[in-house]
Amino acid sequence: MQLTSGLTGKITPEMEQAALWEGTTPEFVRLGLAEGRIVIPKNRRRSFPARGIGTGLRTKVSASIGLYGAEGSVKEETAKIRAALEAGADALMDLSVSGEIDAMRRETLALAPVPVGTLPLYQALAEAAGKYGSSLKMEAEELFEVIERQAADGVDFLALHSGMTMRVVERARLVKRADPLVSYGGAHLTGWMVHHQRENPLYEHFDRVLEIAGKYDVVVSLADGMRPGCLADSLDGAQVEEMVVLGELVKRAREAGVQVMVKGPGHVPLNQLKATVTLQKSLCHGAPYFVFGPVVTDIAAGYDHISAAVGGAISAWAGAELLCYVTAAEHLGLPDADQVREGVLAARIAAHAADLARGLPGAAEWDLEISRARKKLDWERQICFSIDPARAEALRKERTSEFSSKCTMCGKYCAMELVSEYLGSAKQAC
Amino acid sequence: MQLTSGLTGKITPEMEQAALWEGTTPEFVRLGLAEGRIVIPKNRRRSFPARGIGTGLRTKVSASIGLYGAEGSVKEETAKIRAALEAGADALMDLSVSGEIDAMRRETLALAPVPVGTLPLYQALAEAAGKYGSSLKMEAEELFEVIERQAADGVDFLALHSGMTMRVVERARLVKRADPLVSYGGAHLTGWMVHHQRENPLYEHFDRVLEIAGKYDVVVSLADGMRPGCLADSLDGAQVEEMVVLGELVKRAREAGVQVMVKGPGHVPLNQLKATVTLQKSLCHGAPYFVFGPVVTDIAAGYDHISAAVGGAISAWAGAELLCYVTAAEHLGLPDADQVREGVLAARIAAHAADLARGLPGAAEWDLEISRARKKLDWERQICFSIDPARAEALRKERTSEFSSKCTMCGKYCAMELVSEYLGSAKQAC
Repeated sequence: MQLTSGLTGKITPEMEQAALWEGTTPEFVRLGLAEGRIVIPKNRRRSFPARGIGTGLRTKVSASIGLYGAEGSVKEETAKIRAALEAGADALMDLSVSGEIDAMRRETLALAPVPVGTLPLYQALAEAAGKYGSSLKMEAEELFEVIERQAADGVDFLALHSGMTMRVVERARLVKRADPLVSYGGAHLTGWMVHHQRENPLYEHFDRVLEIAGKYDVVVSLADGMRPGCLADSLDGAQVEEMVVLGELVKRAREAGVQVMVKGPGHVPLNQLKATVTLQKSLCHGAPYFVFGPVVTDIAAGYDHISAAVGGAISAWAGAELLCYVTAAEHLGLPDADQVREGVLAARIAAHAADLARGLPGAAEWDLEISRARKKLDWERQICFSIDPARAEALRKERTSEFSSKCTMCGKYCAMELVSEYLGSAKQAC
Repeated sequence: MQLTSGLTGKITPEMEQAALWEGTTPEFVRLGLAEGRIVIPKNRRRSFPARGIGTGLRTKVSASIGLYGAEGSVKEETAKIRAALEAGADALMDLSVSGEIDAMRRETLALAPVPVGTLPLYQALAEAAGKYGSSLKMEAEELFEVIERQAADGVDFLALHSGMTMRVVERARLVKRADPLVSYGGAHLTGWMVHHQRENPLYEHFDRVLEIAGKYDVVVSLADGMRPGCLADSLDGAQVEEMVVLGELVKRAREAGVQVMVKGPGHVPLNQLKATVTLQKSLCHGAPYFVFGPVVTDIAAGYDHISAAVGGAISAWAGAELLCYVTAAEHLGLPDADQVREGVLAARIAAHAADLARGLPGAAEWDLEISRARKKLDWERQICFSIDPARAEALRKERTSEFSSKCTMCGKYCAMELVSEYLGSAKQAC
């Protein structure tokens, strides 16, 4: 197990792989793991190059796919997985809520040489609906069976709404949110709890969760069922009270030797992003923070990947280590493969901008390389060092004729040559 | 004149129009004008609804178009103007550097019911190239003739590189920038200065600039020829020394009763955005700050509208009042009409996110309206309150079938109805 190895001072091959890729030392990764500030999501049963997520490492990006509604197909989602990987996603989540959920997950695990996460509650609800005609009839036992099945399949991180206790739900009632429960899993779980008048089994039996996670060395990703779904609800009593509970669970997971990270919002105004991350780091004892965007306004439907890039950049600069992408289809429908691709790239731009601002070793060098190529008018290198060389090249080609026209500005003496000579630099672009 | 009226306590119809549109008082706008923190770019000869730019007002967005190279046409650029206006641009800049520059400007002025800015140096250089076979042979007198011609045509704000003195150029030589001069006008002007070994006429004869600006009540937009063209050059000696000179010119403009704003970068890392705006506000005596993006990484060619939305949001939150859009074609070529449209919308999202963070009256209400519609599953209102209803509707329609499938999760008792009843809210979305 990565965490227990880290605690006993043992450096695992996964720590070495993660360190090599980041240009840091295995000891740095080991210490981060031991202190709970770094996780390496990699199921004991899976084989792919291990990567760390956490303090002092590059900001990572996760893309979500999955079956939803009658029209989705494994094939269609597979195309999205390919698009996400090509665009540079560091992790994937299969968030299937219906259809061939087992097949989809297994296909995702087979295809993706990156950590794969799932949200087992979705499958447990769907199976109960199929079996009993109602998801409300799900038995707690069935939920744990699904968790075990997904972990046994090789899932690397499990999203679990363990912090949504009865008291937290009661708090949501008291604070009268503008949009109470935008988390699909959170809302269904609340419905189940209210219907049965029973405590959340993912909280009540958190030890069982830890037992399964420990068995396969799966990272527990504590999901925020109370994540705000609009700016007006950001940092309200329901969100913060749940975050306090998540902090309690972070400690319990660590004590059980289980790696843990915490999921975050959602919808956050610019001026609350830093506070949100600071609060999570304090309440959750430095656990890696996996934020969903966040979008910084509610009105950008159709462009939420842009709104999320703004929120993601500031969040990652403030300390969030994993950004869940948001696509242009958010709030409107499910993304197609192109929107998946653009969503991953928007999040990667945010992640890199944050890495630059944090002074992460190696980050500024990338920008300097492309800037030097730009100065030298070396198009090949500019394209090659762009975040998406294929797109940069395509746009460049579309527009090349405009640049190919011979310059008629200066005649005999080129003003740009005069400038370059004076400044002692390579020839200035005109 | 707006500024002199403001100073003598007189409220003009333009101040009233601007105040009405912002939901503030004419006195607030008058005071901002008098103190130089607000400008109203509206040529004495033009007629359109006046808007203010500056402290305490909504963050505005400007889109640039113009003839460039042999292939451009007035017709093509006109389509881009329409796209920019439809997308909600608050201002336009015609940055034509070749072809029928007079015709393009006059067409822009005729079409656009918003402030129009130009950069007269471009036309003066192009005309000298045509007349003498070299732009380097441009006479200072000819530059002032073009400034007068453009102002007389009705241009509302004039971009002028008046701060690029010989000393500033010398500083650029000393600091050895990674990418010395990315401003097209700045680079050509430097070439002219080096060639003639003469001081910048826009600095030396700044009084003539002010005289023309005063005559037509045009806003002087002090352009930053030394704007950094890569993160590595941000906040270096050349940029800051020029900003000091721009501050000197802000004072001189105000003393002459001429409204003035200051142009800014460019390429700025996340962690230098706030410092850049704070420095400008201090050195330039609170003059409105018109920033170009800024992009927050050099590597996002193809997605620079996203990178610029990140930089624009933080800059505007820190106090910049006008965002010059950046399109997806930036660093690769000229944008087409679709990229213009998307560039304006990306900048508007940034502007609105900043207005929310600044607590600008009225900003949060917009987000609350759409969030309430979202909660109620009222698609018509969600679309209507989206920043780009046409795009939101198109994406929604593409994906509608996925949402139309009947819910089979809960059977007899809907979990969402239970939740809503418990929380005392409208029915929860599933």
